[in-house]
Amino acid sequence: MEERANAKGTTEDRILLDRDEMPTRYYNILADLPWAFPPPIHPGTKEPLGPEALLPLFSKEVVMQEVSSERFIDIPGPVLEAYHQFGRPTPLQRARRFEQALGTPARIYYKREDVSPTGSHKLNTAVAQAYYAAKEGIEGLVTETGAGQWGSALALACSRFDLDCHVFMVRCSFMQKPYRRNVMELYGADVVPSPSDKTEFGKKLLAQDPDHPGSLGIAISEAVMTVAGGQGKLKYALGSVLNHVLLHQTVIGQEVIKQFEKLDVTPTHMVACIGGGSNLGGFILPMMAKKLKGQVDTKFCAVEPSLVASLCEGSYEYDFGDTAEVTPLIKMHTLGHGFIPPPIHAGGLRYHGAAPIISLLKHHGALDAYAYPQDQTFEAGTLFAKSEGIIPAPESCHAIRHAMELALEAKRAGKAGKNYVICFNLSGHGLLDLNGYGQFKEGTLVKDEARTPVTSPSQNLAVEEAR
Amino acid sequence: MEERANAKGTTEDRILLDRDEMPTRYYNILADLPWAFPPPIHPGTKEPLGPEALLPLFSKEVVMQEVSSERFIDIPGPVLEAYHQFGRPTPLQRARRFEQALGTPARIYYKREDVSPTGSHKLNTAVAQAYYAAKEGIEGLVTETGAGQWGSALALACSRFDLDCHVFMVRCSFMQKPYRRNVMELYGADVVPSPSDKTEFGKKLLAQDPDHPGSLGIAISEAVMTVAGGQGKLKYALGSVLNHVLLHQTVIGQEVIKQFEKLDVTPTHMVACIGGGSNLGGFILPMMAKKLKGQVDTKFCAVEPSLVASLCEGSYEYDFGDTAEVTPLIKMHTLGHGFIPPPIHAGGLRYHGAAPIISLLKHHGALDAYAYPQDQTFEAGTLFAKSEGIIPAPESCHAIRHAMELALEAKRAGKAGKNYVICFNLSGHGLLDLNGYGQFKEGTLVKDEARTPVTSPSQNLAVEEAR
Repeated sequence: MEERANAKGTTEDRILLDRDEMPTRYYNILADLPWAFPPPIHPGTKEPLGPEALLPLFSKEVVMQEVSSERFIDIPGPVLEAYHQFGRPTPLQRARRFEQALGTPARIYYKREDVSPTGSHKLNTAVAQAYYAAKEGIEGLVTETGAGQWGSALALACSRFDLDCHVFMVRCSFMQKPYRRNVMELYGADVVPSPSDKTEFGKKLLAQDPDHPGSLGIAISEAVMTVAGGQGKLKYALGSVLNHVLLHQTVIGQEVIKQFEKLDVTPTHMVACIGGGSNLGGFILPMMAKKLKGQVDTKFCAVEPSLVASLCEGSYEYDFGDTAEVTPLIKMHTLGHGFIPPPIHAGGLRYHGAAPIISLLKHHGALDAYAYPQDQTFEAGTLFAKSEGIIPAPESCHAIRHAMELALEAKRAGKAGKNYVICFNLSGHGLLDLNGYGQFKEGTLVKDEARTPVTSPSQNLAVEEAR
Repeated sequence: MEERANAKGTTEDRILLDRDEMPTRYYNILADLPWAFPPPIHPGTKEPLGPEALLPLFSKEVVMQEVSSERFIDIPGPVLEAYHQFGRPTPLQRARRFEQALGTPARIYYKREDVSPTGSHKLNTAVAQAYYAAKEGIEGLVTETGAGQWGSALALACSRFDLDCHVFMVRCSFMQKPYRRNVMELYGADVVPSPSDKTEFGKKLLAQDPDHPGSLGIAISEAVMTVAGGQGKLKYALGSVLNHVLLHQTVIGQEVIKQFEKLDVTPTHMVACIGGGSNLGGFILPMMAKKLKGQVDTKFCAVEPSLVASLCEGSYEYDFGDTAEVTPLIKMHTLGHGFIPPPIHAGGLRYHGAAPIISLLKHHGALDAYAYPQDQTFEAGTLFAKSEGIIPAPESCHAIRHAMELALEAKRAGKAGKNYVICFNLSGHGLLDLNGYGQFKEGTLVKDEARTPVTSPSQNLAVEEAR
């Protein structure tokens, strides 16, 4: 370390961008995909659904973005302003001490989406969705939340644009995670445990069981029903899965490209965890565009919990987005909409399917998927925290675990290992999830079995063919 | 907001500094004070203590800094590097939406010390103390912690420089705040509840009461005794009060000056909370130097909890720094070393005295002190969180309350109110203190009485005289 002990040295361990280098457009991969994008279809007729079918649920702008084939969509000024106040552009940092701890010749970088006030990337789309809703005169947004990252982000975004925010929080999380509820309420959101007495569906479930623990599926149903009963004054907001959500998150990946340009290197591997797919999508899609054009040879790695491995173990088919079958059918890698995810700490990865865009890319071999058991992810997160000082969210620990495996692969590769440039998305911090780390340290984490990492051997072939 | 909707606008709501604008020297106010600084004295002889008396406890460099009269002390390269990785220079942000919520013509800015990985300013001195210890071949640092902000910072700093870190955590906090303990352990620190079975003193107390709740005074005694028994391999680290700690924190105030220079304005008021005095000192001392030279007319405001108001209600005299009378006597504003602070949420402000430097400045009228009851501070923190998106630490809520009062004063002042430029130090975030906010919302906070703000009418006179 001494050799780099220079106040104005040229070490580039923390790559920052100026405000005027912040992306001013969202990037839409649908404009560049060499494969047809399967549209959502009606569960009854099996006919493709047009945008008009989504208008009762979402703001007009969001619906237009969902079906847009424009390559770039301008980010409105007030949204850019909020991004800046909330910490964008975010730093790209070199994990030099993590590299040293692993004894790897690889370079490891991480994109810091943990620096937003709500502690994750979720604010990128929350701000956009709230702005569009406010601009269209909508009075409030309704959503569901499990662990609370998404609910916190939407609550802050609604506060920013003077919208009401109604959050249905899965009842067992509402009870177990009072801190997340406190955050949402601090931002002025109305948070109710689901099932609730706010909807007929919720009342029915509570009548059957006053202590009903709830589920994300039930909470989605209650949120959608609340919008339906809101006489057009309320709209629904979703924090992942859909095209427009991934679109908004592309500010991350665009910044990453600019930051690597400053370093004059190209990452050989980009790694992110995947639940619904918004942090992975936002992180990799701008670089994926370059890959599809043959400009880079970066490998893209999606990392799942072995207990909820929709990309590694699910099938690619039309399925409902929710448990209660209130959404259209969307084509995705899915474990089945009846799948009940086990209560792992990475609450944000507990979803039965993966975003249609990500699923399509996986289907055509443009990205690889890997799955790790919970304890291995906390092991990696603990080493990272001790090395770099930042405590990662349990979700992000999945990305870190795979980055670590790649770094160890580089170590085994000898001289060639020096060529590895691994970048992962640190999607959030773990300051509100510290009990998971405590359980890991005490050895009381629920055990799950390690799965063999699944790769797509056709990867490069498929991309070659598509060109 | 629409009028500022410009991606590359010239709005200056978030003032950033480049790495090469990061201060490279600590500023030592002792070089510029127009008053004699009262030295620490021996409790028995009442004779001034030389630096040699501190050498068994602290690293050599720290002791030299404690008694130094050099105006500037270079920051070592590895410390600068760690500062940079951990988020320095930190942003200065305009609280525009908070201003709007208050309807004030005043401009309000806040310095973001919440962005460090451990969530507060404490890392600024922890990194320096750990570096000096490591350089001198010391094996480990020992400290005490109450709420855990300081313990977290020292744990990370020790991990950075490969030192052992032993933390005596007040037993009731150890039990009540498992999250903070998790953080310290993640960074590799050894955390034991105090009283502990690690010292004879602790054993004695546990024998009397196996469920002894502990106190900061007892934890300090155990830490100091552990150092004494460490055969020179261990040193003690303190997170506030002493000159060298305030010295290290001056990176904050130096950055603030550069940031206001970019705005081409001078703050009329600089506001910070005070416990031991390190965040206040680090924030104001560089500007205080300018005030003492007559270059600025900034007012400095120290904000205390009304239940622990050492500046507003204590006397200025020689007192012990700890409860167990193991430290030298230091001249400070104090409520008496036997004072037991009530269990307010702002754990970092629960100290019976104030730093000798701050106490001296207060004594000579160079700063004003104000005290607010707990519920008024959470009220201000809640409004700030909703407006700006960042959830402040309960300690920082004290600064925010006073900034709010000044902003309302500006509102009452009519046209002249436009001249108010208020800057407060956001010393930390409140993500690990959310139960305080929950209790405030539910109205279950323990009530305390409002105190009349205490001002020093001699302020400007004293400074004038000193010139």
